[in-house]
Amino acid sequence: MTDHAQIHPIDVLLHKRDGRALSDAEIEFFVRAVVDHTVSDAQIGAFLMAVWLRGLDARELATLTRAMRFSGEVFDPTPLHAFAVDKHSTGGVGDKTSLLIAPIIAAVAFKEEPPQRLVVPMISGRSLGHTGGTLDKLESIPGYHTQLTSDQFAAVLSRCGASIIGQSPKLVPADRILYAMRDHTGTVESPNLICASIMSKKLAAGLNGLVLDVKTGSGAFMSRYEDSEHLARLMVATGEAAGTRTAALLTSMDEPLGRFSGNWVEVWECIDILQNKRHPMSANLIELSNLLAGWMLYLGQHAETPEEGAARADESLRNGSAYKAWLAMVKLQGGDVSVFNDPAAHHQPRANRVLTAWDSGYLASMDCAQVGWAVQRLGAGRTKPGEPVSAHAGLEMHAKLGDWVEAGAPLCTVFSEDERLLDEPMKMLRDTLVLSETPPERHPLIRTIITAETLR
Amino acid sequence: MTDHAQIHPIDVLLHKRDGRALSDAEIEFFVRAVVDHTVSDAQIGAFLMAVWLRGLDARELATLTRAMRFSGEVFDPTPLHAFAVDKHSTGGVGDKTSLLIAPIIAAVAFKEEPPQRLVVPMISGRSLGHTGGTLDKLESIPGYHTQLTSDQFAAVLSRCGASIIGQSPKLVPADRILYAMRDHTGTVESPNLICASIMSKKLAAGLNGLVLDVKTGSGAFMSRYEDSEHLARLMVATGEAAGTRTAALLTSMDEPLGRFSGNWVEVWECIDILQNKRHPMSANLIELSNLLAGWMLYLGQHAETPEEGAARADESLRNGSAYKAWLAMVKLQGGDVSVFNDPAAHHQPRANRVLTAWDSGYLASMDCAQVGWAVQRLGAGRTKPGEPVSAHAGLEMHAKLGDWVEAGAPLCTVFSEDERLLDEPMKMLRDTLVLSETPPERHPLIRTIITAETLR
Repeated sequence: MTDHAQIHPIDVLLHKRDGRALSDAEIEFFVRAVVDHTVSDAQIGAFLMAVWLRGLDARELATLTRAMRFSGEVFDPTPLHAFAVDKHSTGGVGDKTSLLIAPIIAAVAFKEEPPQRLVVPMISGRSLGHTGGTLDKLESIPGYHTQLTSDQFAAVLSRCGASIIGQSPKLVPADRILYAMRDHTGTVESPNLICASIMSKKLAAGLNGLVLDVKTGSGAFMSRYEDSEHLARLMVATGEAAGTRTAALLTSMDEPLGRFSGNWVEVWECIDILQNKRHPMSANLIELSNLLAGWMLYLGQHAETPEEGAARADESLRNGSAYKAWLAMVKLQGGDVSVFNDPAAHHQPRANRVLTAWDSGYLASMDCAQVGWAVQRLGAGRTKPGEPVSAHAGLEMHAKLGDWVEAGAPLCTVFSEDERLLDEPMKMLRDTLVLSETPPERHPLIRTIITAETLR
Repeated sequence: MTDHAQIHPIDVLLHKRDGRALSDAEIEFFVRAVVDHTVSDAQIGAFLMAVWLRGLDARELATLTRAMRFSGEVFDPTPLHAFAVDKHSTGGVGDKTSLLIAPIIAAVAFKEEPPQRLVVPMISGRSLGHTGGTLDKLESIPGYHTQLTSDQFAAVLSRCGASIIGQSPKLVPADRILYAMRDHTGTVESPNLICASIMSKKLAAGLNGLVLDVKTGSGAFMSRYEDSEHLARLMVATGEAAGTRTAALLTSMDEPLGRFSGNWVEVWECIDILQNKRHPMSANLIELSNLLAGWMLYLGQHAETPEEGAARADESLRNGSAYKAWLAMVKLQGGDVSVFNDPAAHHQPRANRVLTAWDSGYLASMDCAQVGWAVQRLGAGRTKPGEPVSAHAGLEMHAKLGDWVEAGAPLCTVFSEDERLLDEPMKMLRDTLVLSETPPERHPLIRTIITAETLR
């Protein structure tokens, strides 16, 4: 225990304002005071702005993350006698890899004896802005519960090796307070504060290994490559400092991942893959899911190399073992698996419309965030926390960047529960999709990989 | 009127965070929102920290000051048909020049016909920390009212040409809110925010001319000369931008000004001077008061030069006309002037003690702020707004910096209403006063003068 008796909030503010590194005791004191409401909102606002403008060094960031991680309850996976691994994505459009990765790891690595046994205690988020949310997708499965107690979470994990739930209000209360404050004090886009927010929540699940999918490109939270790489390096360093083996894959988010973007349509796409019915538009989704799962298996010492891990992941998708794990997890969380027998039949939007190519050409580029906003406007997403989302709204892409499209051929189809919600998204998509006579230059799906070794 | 419909608080924060100059409309919107409580405390804290770290340009500072000045009621001296002049000091130890300057200007320049007539609508503050406050000094005069309505203030001014009162809660409400926030968000020592706070309050009295006494040295709020000069330049530029003729004198605050520091003892010292009984220890007080008053007379076009103004000021002290003006002002504000017949007799501390020289030597240096804190600890000052102060606590200096003192001769005498309050101040004074075999180098009383011409 550190003695905080001599620390005053004002001193913490003055030190950071003047560009000094805060001591561990100062950071721990301030985070505790945030949760205990013994600092004022004005002091929190000033602290966030000072951190935004002055930054944090690696030690300060690790300490802030740790203090936030332990600001409330934490999940302790040690009674499961397994190596806890997870994946986190910074958010994209059509990004449904979690729905595949959790059952893949459970299928490949849960049956082993300790210490080779892996579990995936995945605490996920909701859609916000132009990005989708895993919880909203799962809740489109009739009966699926995302709000489990710690005991229920542990019980699901102990029986099937994976569980995907929402954040309990008792977990990481410091982040809840700071995140809400950042939103209206202009301090959201701080790499340090983003890192502390993400990593405190992930590490509160007691992870031994963590793979980060840091998106870059027009559909990413941070569109500039340098910013994404900087955030990835901060997160890997912070994870490793907390004793969690951490790797980050910087991946392209220049177009929606896979075939569908929305809620149920994304579950549907995953069920097809788990049932080994591979649609051509799902290729990049399958590739990325296998790679991320491969890294998780590698960090969990379940594969000699990430590539070997990816091969085992793909095998689990092809042989039906991942689908079995998926059915077990969904059933344990109350979901009705009968809808998986014919997922297309469960897709019941009240209205849909097709955008056809106005010319022949290569699908050359798009502002992927705009595509995400179109999905949100269709009813699949939200602009403020707490807003309801539609299970059946969404979008199907019929072409990938670089594909040749004949004039009049479908580019994408939009779905909504309300006919009136179609016009604006259709216009947004028409405005942002670019057809060109020359094929575009493409970024590879994986731009770079950051590990503890990279940072040395 | 500026259209604020399109401005959101978050944009103001983002723009200042990113180092951009805020538009006039943005600044006016934010100050209005502070007063209307439509921005959150967290947003105010973030705003203050962003301004602290990013600064303001001259136009932004002038706009912020103007928006704060007009955030509530303002005093309008135009019905008095006079040129309104005032003096403001950034605060020091034993600084009682206001008590002399107000009656000097009234004596010299109030009887003239417009436009040569000057009035001094002086809105003053209270002691805080190591510095004294004019209101606390005046309230040691039995019956003196410092809380007048605008109409009462105007009535006193119209009858005697000077009035010294406290700030009404309706005046400059934006400053009241921002000042309280700055105090606990670590954003006090921002030259921009200090300038806006001081100037908005002073200009709200509708001044045509303003002389600033910016202290520098160990007893000043800002001890570094460069900082004081920077603040002085900001204030002169801001005053001139508001159409108020403004000059700043940078003056030494290396030792208490004059003979006494406290409340009644400072009034006593002024009465002696007004009655033309000049104690040798009051020499620097008289010199500074005459110089400041001289500049006010010069700005008010009542003297060809500041030096001529200072000579007329000194004359008013010597010929009793300033004393007459003083008696008129005190009477009009309810004060009992009979105590001025024998001010020494009204000085009734319950306890006093003399600090004698422990060695022979020159009084070489002191931390003047420590001397101010000793005065505060004796009971004459406060550490938090709202605390009561003692009328009779205080300190008398028996030597100036550079004076030769024989071992055993008195250096200073402390007074308090409580014997138990003497020990700590005596120790503080013993620790900070330095006797030396060689005479110290001295700073001149006036270090430099900043005017509109200087800034060009």
